[in-house]
Amino acid sequence: MIKIAVDAMGGDFAPKEQVEGAMKAISMLDDIEVVLFGEKSVIEPYLTNDERITIVESEGTIDMGEKDPISAIRSNRKSSMALALSSVRSGDTDAVVSSGATQALIAGAHILVGRLKSMKRTAIAPLIPNVKGTQTILLDAGGNLEIKAEYMRHQALFAHIYAEKVLKINKPTIGLLNIGTEAGKGRDLDKEVFELFKDDPILNFVGNVEPKTILNPPCDIIISDGFTTNIAMKTIEGTAKGMGMILKQELSKGFFGKIGLLLSAKNLKNFKKKMAPEEIGGAMIYGLRGVVVKAQGSSKSIGFYNAIRQARNVVYEDVINKVEETIKRDVKDE
Amino acid sequence: MIKIAVDAMGGDFAPKEQVEGAMKAISMLDDIEVVLFGEKSVIEPYLTNDERITIVESEGTIDMGEKDPISAIRSNRKSSMALALSSVRSGDTDAVVSSGATQALIAGAHILVGRLKSMKRTAIAPLIPNVKGTQTILLDAGGNLEIKAEYMRHQALFAHIYAEKVLKINKPTIGLLNIGTEAGKGRDLDKEVFELFKDDPILNFVGNVEPKTILNPPCDIIISDGFTTNIAMKTIEGTAKGMGMILKQELSKGFFGKIGLLLSAKNLKNFKKKMAPEEIGGAMIYGLRGVVVKAQGSSKSIGFYNAIRQARNVVYEDVINKVEETIKRDVKDE
Repeated sequence: MIKIAVDAMGGDFAPKEQVEGAMKAISMLDDIEVVLFGEKSVIEPYLTNDERITIVESEGTIDMGEKDPISAIRSNRKSSMALALSSVRSGDTDAVVSSGATQALIAGAHILVGRLKSMKRTAIAPLIPNVKGTQTILLDAGGNLEIKAEYMRHQALFAHIYAEKVLKINKPTIGLLNIGTEAGKGRDLDKEVFELFKDDPILNFVGNVEPKTILNPPCDIIISDGFTTNIAMKTIEGTAKGMGMILKQELSKGFFGKIGLLLSAKNLKNFKKKMAPEEIGGAMIYGLRGVVVKAQGSSKSIGFYNAIRQARNVVYEDVINKVEETIKRDVKDE
Repeated sequence: MIKIAVDAMGGDFAPKEQVEGAMKAISMLDDIEVVLFGEKSVIEPYLTNDERITIVESEGTIDMGEKDPISAIRSNRKSSMALALSSVRSGDTDAVVSSGATQALIAGAHILVGRLKSMKRTAIAPLIPNVKGTQTILLDAGGNLEIKAEYMRHQALFAHIYAEKVLKINKPTIGLLNIGTEAGKGRDLDKEVFELFKDDPILNFVGNVEPKTILNPPCDIIISDGFTTNIAMKTIEGTAKGMGMILKQELSKGFFGKIGLLLSAKNLKNFKKKMAPEEIGGAMIYGLRGVVVKAQGSSKSIGFYNAIRQARNVVYEDVINKVEETIKRDVKDE
C-alpha cells in the first residue's frame, strides 16, 4: 500500500474538495491509503466513506493569503500542512498532496522533508496542456529567481526521469525557454545552459524554444530560471483568461452568434476543461527527499484526485531514488 | 505636411501590402505625404494612385531571415531600410515605418537615426489588446536583456508621454511586470525599479502587476526588462495561437458543434481580428532622435496603415521633444 498524506485544510475550497478528491482516489486506485491532516469536526461531514482513509487531527492552518508564509509554516508545526510534511519525513506516509500556499509549502518542505543531497536547488514543475492533447513539463516555476546553469541541469535530469517513468514518454526531449531559437540567444545564463545541455549524454536537448510555441512545443520539457518560467506560466494563465472573456463577448454578439453559442456550449465547456490546469494534476516539487505535490489552490475534487494519482505514480515508480542515483553516478563520472 | 518614410521592401508580404497600406493612409489622413523606399519596378504595379506618394529607389533588401541583421544593415546603406532611416536623420522625412527584421531595424536606427542624448537605452514598445477593448503599452520587448533601473525609468517616462499624447489617456498608469503583486517580490532589479517608481512625481505607479492579468491589467503601461517582456509577449502569442487550435478542434466536434461553429463563424473571425496585433498598430522604438515604428513582419495593408497613422500621430504630437525636455528637466531637478 502507498500512503498519501493529504493536507485537507489548504486551498480555496478546503476541506470539502480535498475530502471528496481523496474518496475518489480511493475508489479509483486500489493500492493506496489516504491520511487526511485536518480538523476532524469539519472533515467528517464530508467523509461519507472512510475506507482506507484515516484522519490526523491538526491545529490551525496556513492561510492562503498569508503575508509571511515562511514564518507561518515555521511557527505552526501542528498545522495540517506541517504535520502532513512531517509524516513523509518520519516514513509514516510516502507522499504529500497539498493545495495550500505555494511559498509555505516550499519552505515547509525544505524544513520538514529536507532536500536531496545531490540537488542544490529545488524546483516546482507544473504540467501545462498542449495542442497535441498531452502535457508539457514546465520548470522551474518559481523556486529560484537566480540560479546557476549546473543546478538547472540537475532539475532537468529530474524532469527527464519524471517524464520517462511517470508520463511514460520514451526518450523525453527538453528545450530551453528563450527569446529566439538560434544558439547564442538570451542572457549569459541562457548561453551557459545551452552549452551545458547541448552534448549531454542523458538529456535530449532540442535547443532554444520560443514562447510562441509554448502550447505546441517541439519538446516534452521546457526549462528556464524560476523568474522567467513563472512569468511565462502566469502569462499563459492571463492570456487564456483574457481570451476567454473576449471570446465570450464576441461569440454572444448578434442573433446567429447567440444561437451558435448555445449549440457550441458543450464543446466550449470541454475546451475550458482542457485548458484548466487542475484537470491535468499538480505541480511536483523536485529536489526533496520525499514526494510533495502542490495542487492548484482553486482545485476541485477532480483536480485533487489527479494530484493524488500523480503522487502515487511518483512513489510507485521510485522516481526520487532514481534521480539520486543518476545525479550521483553523473558526479562520479566527471 | 508630415512626411512618412515607408520601407516598402521589408516584411513577409512586401511590397504589395506596404504599398496598399500607404495608399490607404493617404486616403484617410490628409496631412501626410509618403515616401516609399524600394525598387520602382516591383512597387509600381501595386501603386494605383500616387497622390502624395513618391518613390526613392533602393538597392537590395535586408532579408527577414538574415542571420546577422546588424552587419547586414551596416554593410547595406542603400537598402530600403537604411535609406528610409537616413531620410529621417537628414530631415527629408519625419518618421519611418518598416516591417523589416526587428534586430536590423534597431541596429540601423541606432546608427542612422541616432539615440536621444537623455536616454541611455532604447526600448521597443508594442501595443497589446486588452479585455476593455483598448490597448496596453508593453515595454521593453527586446532591446535590452540586462538593464539598470534608472534607464527603465527613462523608458517609462517616454511611455507615459506617449500614452498621454498619442493614446489620449489622461494620467496614464504604469505597473511593473512581476511574479507577485506584493512589494519586495522579484529579482534585485525588480525591487530597485519598485523603489525608484513608487514615489515618482510624474509616473502613476500602481506597483507590481502579475502576468495573469496581462490582458486585463490594472494599468495602461506594463514595464520590465527586455528579456522578460519579450518572453511575456511571445507567450501571449503562443497561448493565443495554441488556444485557437484547441478551440477549433473542440468546437468542430459533433453535429451541434459543427452547426454552432458555422453560426459563430463571423463572430470567431471578429475575435481573431481583435487578438491580431496588426489591427492595433506597430511597436514604436523609444529613445531615438526620430520616430521609428516597427510594423509586424506579417502585416497586411491594414496593419501597415495603422502603423503609418501611429507614426503620424507621434510626429504631430511632438512626442520626442516632449520626452527630451521632460528627462532633461528631471535630471536638472535631481
